[in-house]
Amino acid sequence: MGTRAWGRPHPAVAAVRSAVRAVLAECDPGDLVLVACSGGADSTALADAARFEGERIGLRVGAVVVDHGLQPGSREVAEEAGARVRALGLDPVGVTSTWVMADGPDGLEAMARASRYRVLDAAAEDLGARLVLLGHTRDDQAEQVLLGLARGSGARSLAGMPAARGRYRRPLLGVTREQTRAACTAEGVTWWDDPMNDDPAVTRVRARRALADLEADLGPGLAAALARSADQLREDADHLDALADAAVAALGSSPWPVDALADLPRPVRTRTWRRLAVAAGCPAGQLSSRHTDACDRLLTHWRGQGPVHLPGGLRATRSDGRVSIAPAARVE
Amino acid sequence: MGTRAWGRPHPAVAAVRSAVRAVLAECDPGDLVLVACSGGADSTALADAARFEGERIGLRVGAVVVDHGLQPGSREVAEEAGARVRALGLDPVGVTSTWVMADGPDGLEAMARASRYRVLDAAAEDLGARLVLLGHTRDDQAEQVLLGLARGSGARSLAGMPAARGRYRRPLLGVTREQTRAACTAEGVTWWDDPMNDDPAVTRVRARRALADLEADLGPGLAAALARSADQLREDADHLDALADAAVAALGSSPWPVDALADLPRPVRTRTWRRLAVAAGCPAGQLSSRHTDACDRLLTHWRGQGPVHLPGGLRATRSDGRVSIAPAARVE
Repeated sequence: MGTRAWGRPHPAVAAVRSAVRAVLAECDPGDLVLVACSGGADSTALADAARFEGERIGLRVGAVVVDHGLQPGSREVAEEAGARVRALGLDPVGVTSTWVMADGPDGLEAMARASRYRVLDAAAEDLGARLVLLGHTRDDQAEQVLLGLARGSGARSLAGMPAARGRYRRPLLGVTREQTRAACTAEGVTWWDDPMNDDPAVTRVRARRALADLEADLGPGLAAALARSADQLREDADHLDALADAAVAALGSSPWPVDALADLPRPVRTRTWRRLAVAAGCPAGQLSSRHTDACDRLLTHWRGQGPVHLPGGLRATRSDGRVSIAPAARVE
Repeated sequence: MGTRAWGRPHPAVAAVRSAVRAVLAECDPGDLVLVACSGGADSTALADAARFEGERIGLRVGAVVVDHGLQPGSREVAEEAGARVRALGLDPVGVTSTWVMADGPDGLEAMARASRYRVLDAAAEDLGARLVLLGHTRDDQAEQVLLGLARGSGARSLAGMPAARGRYRRPLLGVTREQTRAACTAEGVTWWDDPMNDDPAVTRVRARRALADLEADLGPGLAAALARSADQLREDADHLDALADAAVAALGSSPWPVDALADLPRPVRTRTWRRLAVAAGCPAGQLSSRHTDACDRLLTHWRGQGPVHLPGGLRATRSDGRVSIAPAARVE
């Protein structure tokens, strides 16, 4: 940490600090900000910059380290990460263990993510934190977009991670992973390289490789282009989602008049169908565009066809100029 | 072509024919349909299926082969492609040469594409063709989406190629390249493999490699997912573009009241800025989201800032509650 007190910061340190400064500007003196810390270079650089920038404007900056217990020795890794950010001057620093079942319906990574946010939410509530900072970088964002592409489920899945949602902020979405490593190195701060980052069984690792391959094929700058597309697609998706929310509110309860749905522009209508189906009990993760397209044909290609079968034992039907989504009648 | 008369067609032949049949359904007996033919497996399978399906419903089916003169012997290749589709029963079949300058502002591939459409348009006009069929497959569509990603310019560039525009139709967007080869093989029809398909200097070849790498990293089904995303993004983009067109029409001529623009939802507003700038003379290919974002800050982050400089020597300015885009004053 020898360079910190003298002269100008390293360009990577300056980039991380500048990104963090922009986000902390919404806080008031005395506020507590928590950094979600994994011990990796991204969140360690974030913690260091948050402490530095927070101190300048009178904030308290703490950290939460979540140990998922997924690997032998993970508790020690988490404790070390906690000790490291404590040494950087963050306070309070909590290290919390959580347990993840390997056989959840949405897979291990989704469960780990859900339990991580439960821990962060609880810590933020208990400590009265104004903001929780997450260390996702531009590379994470680009990988997220690639994974969305592989799912093929449209704008929302391509829109990547938002910079702000609720109390959460992602200051580093414009900073590269390489910059966070350079910032840690320049500051003399060590970090922990997760061996799972090399395990091809982990989806995110495959996305990382895919991104590297794509840059080799299509030229450098691809991660930046993906992040830029994500920003624009997120604006599109937010607007179309808001229109669909308004449409659902206006439609009221089932059955819905065919005309009221048919009058909606197609991209709003497919989103409205999705909302109506999920509200009726359809599991969101199993509902595909194939299903909502079939529902939509009840409006656009009506020739007296039978019900559309939806996941969760539901069906969409049309009769007497109205459509509805309801559980299929049980055979007794 | 021995299998054609006997028994059921090969599944790949059936898939290509079924896709073509759906598109030809909009034609009336006696109509002429033209197939844009390169001599490759995609357009050869398309020509064969169009001839077969067209005959069933009383259409005339011809072909246009465009020789770009980009490689030595290209005229011979084009003549052979013409002879091959003539032998399949297509009539009329025209082979047209065109010349492409290697140093156009948009690059060789863009110029070749533009001159190809000029030839196809002229042929369709001269012969009174109802439709022109293009042989792009689902793989082409997926590659197009990847190239859009690399540009990072939002929904429109990710939306891929439309199935229908004007007189053009792309019946094979749901058919794989592999299926078109299998269809040709099953029908005993030969095709020409363009050596440029292996030249990494060609953007599309790099996209092809990128797609193969991505499928290896993220699992099979990626091309289908990309094509599916493209369909949904195209619907979104069409709707938001239509809203922006309507906004531009309502705004009328420059200068425009700040409120009228600021009231538009953000994804419509950025598209509106783009249209206003292009209409004022800004070269579309040089206008990025960085420029339109800067224009937008004249509305959303107004603090008396100076003009926004746009490509083509234009600038966007705000004064007296109005914004305008005009050529920068010349220094005499």
